[in-house]
Amino acid sequence: MNAGKILVAQGGGPTAVINQSLVGVVLEARRFGNVDRIYGAHHGVRGILNEDFVDLTRETSHNLELVAATPGSALGSTRDKPDLKYCQQIFQVLRAHGIGHFFYIGGNDSSDTVRIVSNEARQAGYPLRCIHIPKTIDNDLVANDHTPGFPSAARFVAQAFAGANLDNAALPGVYVAVVMGRHAGFLTAASALGKKFPDDGPHLIYLPERDFAIEAFLGDVKTMYERHGRCVVAVSEGIHDASGQPVLAQLAKELERDAHGNVQLSGSGALADLLCEEIKARLGIKRVRGDTFGYLQRSFIGCVSDVDAREAREVGEKAVQFAMWGEHDGSVAIQRTGFYSADYQLLPLEAVAGKTRVMDDAFIAPSGTDVTDAFRLYLRPLLGSGMPDAYRLRPAPVAKVLGT
Amino acid sequence: MNAGKILVAQGGGPTAVINQSLVGVVLEARRFGNVDRIYGAHHGVRGILNEDFVDLTRETSHNLELVAATPGSALGSTRDKPDLKYCQQIFQVLRAHGIGHFFYIGGNDSSDTVRIVSNEARQAGYPLRCIHIPKTIDNDLVANDHTPGFPSAARFVAQAFAGANLDNAALPGVYVAVVMGRHAGFLTAASALGKKFPDDGPHLIYLPERDFAIEAFLGDVKTMYERHGRCVVAVSEGIHDASGQPVLAQLAKELERDAHGNVQLSGSGALADLLCEEIKARLGIKRVRGDTFGYLQRSFIGCVSDVDAREAREVGEKAVQFAMWGEHDGSVAIQRTGFYSADYQLLPLEAVAGKTRVMDDAFIAPSGTDVTDAFRLYLRPLLGSGMPDAYRLRPAPVAKVLGT
Repeated sequence: MNAGKILVAQGGGPTAVINQSLVGVVLEARRFGNVDRIYGAHHGVRGILNEDFVDLTRETSHNLELVAATPGSALGSTRDKPDLKYCQQIFQVLRAHGIGHFFYIGGNDSSDTVRIVSNEARQAGYPLRCIHIPKTIDNDLVANDHTPGFPSAARFVAQAFAGANLDNAALPGVYVAVVMGRHAGFLTAASALGKKFPDDGPHLIYLPERDFAIEAFLGDVKTMYERHGRCVVAVSEGIHDASGQPVLAQLAKELERDAHGNVQLSGSGALADLLCEEIKARLGIKRVRGDTFGYLQRSFIGCVSDVDAREAREVGEKAVQFAMWGEHDGSVAIQRTGFYSADYQLLPLEAVAGKTRVMDDAFIAPSGTDVTDAFRLYLRPLLGSGMPDAYRLRPAPVAKVLGT
Repeated sequence: MNAGKILVAQGGGPTAVINQSLVGVVLEARRFGNVDRIYGAHHGVRGILNEDFVDLTRETSHNLELVAATPGSALGSTRDKPDLKYCQQIFQVLRAHGIGHFFYIGGNDSSDTVRIVSNEARQAGYPLRCIHIPKTIDNDLVANDHTPGFPSAARFVAQAFAGANLDNAALPGVYVAVVMGRHAGFLTAASALGKKFPDDGPHLIYLPERDFAIEAFLGDVKTMYERHGRCVVAVSEGIHDASGQPVLAQLAKELERDAHGNVQLSGSGALADLLCEEIKARLGIKRVRGDTFGYLQRSFIGCVSDVDAREAREVGEKAVQFAMWGEHDGSVAIQRTGFYSADYQLLPLEAVAGKTRVMDDAFIAPSGTDVTDAFRLYLRPLLGSGMPDAYRLRPAPVAKVLGT
């Protein structure tokens, strides 16, 4: 049976390994002789609407491998979240171009787009195989052990905190760093994997899975500062009070909202600055510094988990295999099968689309400001090989001559 | 002749390789049989005043090698800038402990401390050899081709911009990132080494060596945004207007000043946020994002130039050799002898102490918003081996079927 043309696109925020999935689709599809052409759409669904396609069949395998190892979305991405009408237009373009297989690499919103397009094709009686390929640094897709992109971002966060802890130990004070993650705290929690010695930071971790109260926060910082003479804090950009209001919203005069109706949390240092000002003013600590990891955590070139890169490639490959040899549309999901080993399933689109996963209670310490060993065991193998390590001088004090 | 005891300390901001210099001193000093003990002072000059010493003679060479490869200041650092009285106290402690050699690893301020302590010893007729070992990510020590710590920080900045450019290409808009550097723009200029293709960012680079005017800035951004459909901007934290007033000062209500009388520029996202707000409000561009690299650029673990690590080790080794076989106090300086090769000189402390180097005009493009090829040639070998690289899909457009 002729498989017609294949179309692949990338949606949502870029990651360090999303191009691995793209190249996984292209190279695997080339193995099938019944595929006419492999098209890529520029800038996700928007490029489909505009028929802005590139013929990936004409790209060399050598350059595809180089692109696979490059962070960012090589086809370009979009923040458009298609409604029903938008999806109907997508379907019209796919039909006009004789597309038989549609692969969309993205997160929750992208999986929902695939679900709607799949429904449209079925209602029209048009033979279209639709596969969602998972991707998100937030790790918030349900029914997945984890999502491609998250391990590399987590590795960046762990390495960043390992270094920030060393810096803070050298010049003691309070250091607050804000990490991406609107609803799910996985990426902020990854800061704990930067900790080696018992008194290392991060000493406190604030996740969107727990309510945030500024008074409790200041009390926690004070306690840790008195205990260690310093304090390193990891804060999720999505922290909110008990009523659900973002902490950032308490200071922001004008909140920019993106097309999804979400408050803009990234691309601003406001939350870190606010928290630092509170610490200075209320606790009287002089050296207080705040960083916002911002786009570095998802775009930094040269900090990739090899496990993540391999799996991102595999979800692309598996997507094509599920499409060619399977009977159903669906979403490729990563399942953990060993310590550490993974396998892939095709789940119904409805099982994944538009849903948000947050951290299990078993991953969060009772204090609410730390992670558990269960989380460390969960995350460590995903960070991959060659993690940099930190060492200390061992104590060998010298007796004072002048002093007491 | 008995060399007595050796004291080594670390001052100023930590770097990725400052522990290489520390370990270079310790391991080289162990080769000299006439050295009684090798002490380290905790937290720089402050630790000397407090006689807070650790006996590094008792540390294993294996652990010293592990510490050498660890970022941060293993002995701890300080922001104290000693005045004459402080230096006299330092000298009293050195004499009380029978210290014959004093090695201080740091930047301009640290070299000035070494200069004053050296004078005190000479005036007292006490035999003390004082050597300053260079270190600063700002690269602003005069009479050095470059300073240890700068190449690794520059590598971080280049990699960060390479990734941010890919992210910005995938989701076009304006991206502004603020880089450390109060007076010298070397680290901000390093962003240019993250650029590969002619239309890659950073499209604009603002250095403290040139006056900054908000109107010209907005005009530059507008031009680049219209040309590329996006714009990536590198900004030094030290940018100032024609009168010398920091741009940040124009918005900050209360400016925290550190013990050196300097305005706090780091540890806040305010400058990036201010510039982004101006771009949004005045140019009407919707997607504008700002990052401040903050402490990541000097503390990130896992982004080290091998050239930098080797040279940082060598300046420590050479310091001991100059001390043991030489006749003078001084500051170790890196000289470039080939493309690429370096050698080391001992300069008089007065030649380095308290002076600030800025970028040569030959390194800055006439536009004032870019670097020259001379700068690229200067910096590239320092970044070391294994720089990550970015690749693109090559154009192979597909004809439209529905559209025009």
